Amino acid sequence: MWKEKLILTLEKAKKSFFCISNLSAEEKNNFLDTLEHNLLSSEDKIIKANKKDIENAKNKNYNSAFIDRLLLTPERIKKISISVKNVKLLPDPVGEKIWENNRPNGLKIEKIRTPIGVIGIIYESRPDVTVEASILCLKSGNCVILKGGKEAVNSNKILVSIIKESLQQHRISPDVVNLITSGGRSAVKFLLSQNQYIDLIIPRGGESLIETVTRYSKIPVIKHYKGVCHTYIDKDAKLEMALEVTFNAKVQRPGTCNATETLLVHREIADKFLPKMYELFKRANVVMKGCEETRKILPDIEEAKEKDWGTEYLDLIISIKVVNNLDEAIYHINKYGTKHSDAIITENKKSAEKFLKEVDSACVYHNASTRFTDGGEFGLGAEIGISTDKIHARGPMGLAELTTYRYLIYGSGQIRK
Amino acid sequence: MWKEKLILTLEKAKKSFFCISNLSAEEKNNFLDTLEHNLLSSEDKIIKANKKDIENAKNKNYNSAFIDRLLLTPERIKKISISVKNVKLLPDPVGEKIWENNRPNGLKIEKIRTPIGVIGIIYESRPDVTVEASILCLKSGNCVILKGGKEAVNSNKILVSIIKESLQQHRISPDVVNLITSGGRSAVKFLLSQNQYIDLIIPRGGESLIETVTRYSKIPVIKHYKGVCHTYIDKDAKLEMALEVTFNAKVQRPGTCNATETLLVHREIADKFLPKMYELFKRANVVMKGCEETRKILPDIEEAKEKDWGTEYLDLIISIKVVNNLDEAIYHINKYGTKHSDAIITENKKSAEKFLKEVDSACVYHNASTRFTDGGEFGLGAEIGISTDKIHARGPMGLAELTTYRYLIYGSGQIRK
Repeated sequence: MWKEKLILTLEKAKKSFFCISNLSAEEKNNFLDTLEHNLLSSEDKIIKANKKDIENAKNKNYNSAFIDRLLLTPERIKKISISVKNVKLLPDPVGEKIWENNRPNGLKIEKIRTPIGVIGIIYESRPDVTVEASILCLKSGNCVILKGGKEAVNSNKILVSIIKESLQQHRISPDVVNLITSGGRSAVKFLLSQNQYIDLIIPRGGESLIETVTRYSKIPVIKHYKGVCHTYIDKDAKLEMALEVTFNAKVQRPGTCNATETLLVHREIADKFLPKMYELFKRANVVMKGCEETRKILPDIEEAKEKDWGTEYLDLIISIKVVNNLDEAIYHINKYGTKHSDAIITENKKSAEKFLKEVDSACVYHNASTRFTDGGEFGLGAEIGISTDKIHARGPMGLAELTTYRYLIYGSGQIRK
Repeated sequence: MWKEKLILTLEKAKKSFFCISNLSAEEKNNFLDTLEHNLLSSEDKIIKANKKDIENAKNKNYNSAFIDRLLLTPERIKKISISVKNVKLLPDPVGEKIWENNRPNGLKIEKIRTPIGVIGIIYESRPDVTVEASILCLKSGNCVILKGGKEAVNSNKILVSIIKESLQQHRISPDVVNLITSGGRSAVKFLLSQNQYIDLIIPRGGESLIETVTRYSKIPVIKHYKGVCHTYIDKDAKLEMALEVTFNAKVQRPGTCNATETLLVHREIADKFLPKMYELFKRANVVMKGCEETRKILPDIEEAKEKDWGTEYLDLIISIKVVNNLDEAIYHINKYGTKHSDAIITENKKSAEKFLKEVDSACVYHNASTRFTDGGEFGLGAEIGISTDKIHARGPMGLAELTTYRYLIYGSGQIRK
């Protein structure tokens, strides 16, 4: 039963691509403007629906962190409406000329940015993702299929109905946004096999969700996997800068994927650097786990196990390793990292160059905090996530990364000889 | 047994990425120069190995088209060596700055083209693919895992050994190129699950190969699927141009993926255009299959069945449909096409604009033959194939499409507030 309904939804979505992909920037912005206002004026309705989800979650004894992610408050609704406004203000990537070439035979070839098609977002129980993912897909001219966690079903339903209403006020087909609520996990697997309808899958969630999606998808997937990010303090680092940047990379917002999880320290600077870093971390209640060499300098910290080097703590915990040289630091990062964000702190230009060349991550920093990996901080605008894949999009994935391209070829009757 | 050997090969390939990805253009070109010469001077050895494959294929009663694809002659070896020379002459895409942004906080962000990593090529029994795929991957700084058809095993082995020798002459690790010969179809499935070693899979071959790869791969896949290409003759077409371009698109080389398979004709021009087209096709022995309307004008041609609209003939066969208007032509192409290459012939600018905007294919032409979809013709240089996917690469996939990017961020101690 849910299967037939789902296929019908996918068919309608695919047909509606034609409608959204050809809208002008102004038409899309007018819709976003209306959505911004409709979200604010529907505050009561949204909170009422969200309360049902919260009560259900409490009855099922979900933990407080889970319930916090699920919760919508007037402030959070305001924040969502601001994100709609911000996306409205971003330039429309569709139609941008990326490249052109005039051929000797008179053919004029243009490479033009175009929407991808139907994008499936598979995510967990954060209802703000429902709106944010939708507006990014729509502004870049795509249709969206949302499959959110069942715990947020009431919140997601009301949010999607507000999006659909706002679309209809501008005579845009409401089929461009679709929420799948039935079928549970079977519906996820089924969705992943529908490559005739869906052009791209973006999973947003924990490791097991991403592994399931990668395993079953016949559709291209862009993963936003965990961030095991590193800060490497080279022997030629400025001590003050090294302390300040490392502290920021770990402590400023430890729950984010771009926070540093492992600190690598060159043997020659370890004696000077580590005791000072220890004092700063201690005062901020950061739990430190060190390799054998680190613990010779900081004897009262925990031991880092092999497992620690690949762990995304998302918390006030850091693993620390003393390395013999730059090569060992690069090797460690390429081995244990997740190709997300890694930094070197050094005044030595050659070492920086080598690090930036050889660390195979989406974002590689010289003398700055890994925390800057973010669409807004890069000047790309809002992002749908940070890609840890290498195909199509790496790092912050903004509107341009939600597009593809077509070649348009202008001739005057040319034939191939 | 083959599994352990395969994993060992993949491990070595992954380690060697570091070596190939950081080579200068000069180093890569010197290797290609040596390879070009080594291929020519090894002609006898190559032909001897190829003879074994040819004899085996004959004993197994493969058809003559199959044996022709498998065959290597002095001329074909010369052609392969020329393709090596051509790739040598192409600019190196690695290190190119694609974008930069100086942020208000002083951070300088650069987006740099970098190799992808380890690329798996799964293909059938054309030994020229062994060399051509390898050199494109290597020139763009990638490692390559080749899994070719078992019928070409002797030819592939000698060709890969020549590539490895040429690499070693320039002290480049021979592990950057690897031919998998054991394990058969099980090895293909196993390869497709090794996403910790392989970054991208490019299947080159028929429908069933591509479907298997799409179904089992945990690794991103870029498909080079069939080309069901269209030429649409608008009511405002110049008759002479329409005849000449359509003839070229079908007849010049019917066995290629960019040859036109379906001709769409506006009702208002059908009476004038179709009888003349018929004469030209007839003289070139093209088999025509028409819709009901077409057969009213050309009564002695075959009937086109529903299946024909989705068929890639790769032969002197064409399906013909009369449409009521531009919208119907666009609808037909988006429904039955494979998002490859489609053309409109018209003198009407508005119709051309609409067609170029709404046909969702990699290459959309105004007044030119679909046969131009080709890396060389686009000025991109040699290509590894024509992507019919929308993610990462569309249309001709040259050296740039075999790369990805990294963000390099230059700071002076910036921390996130």
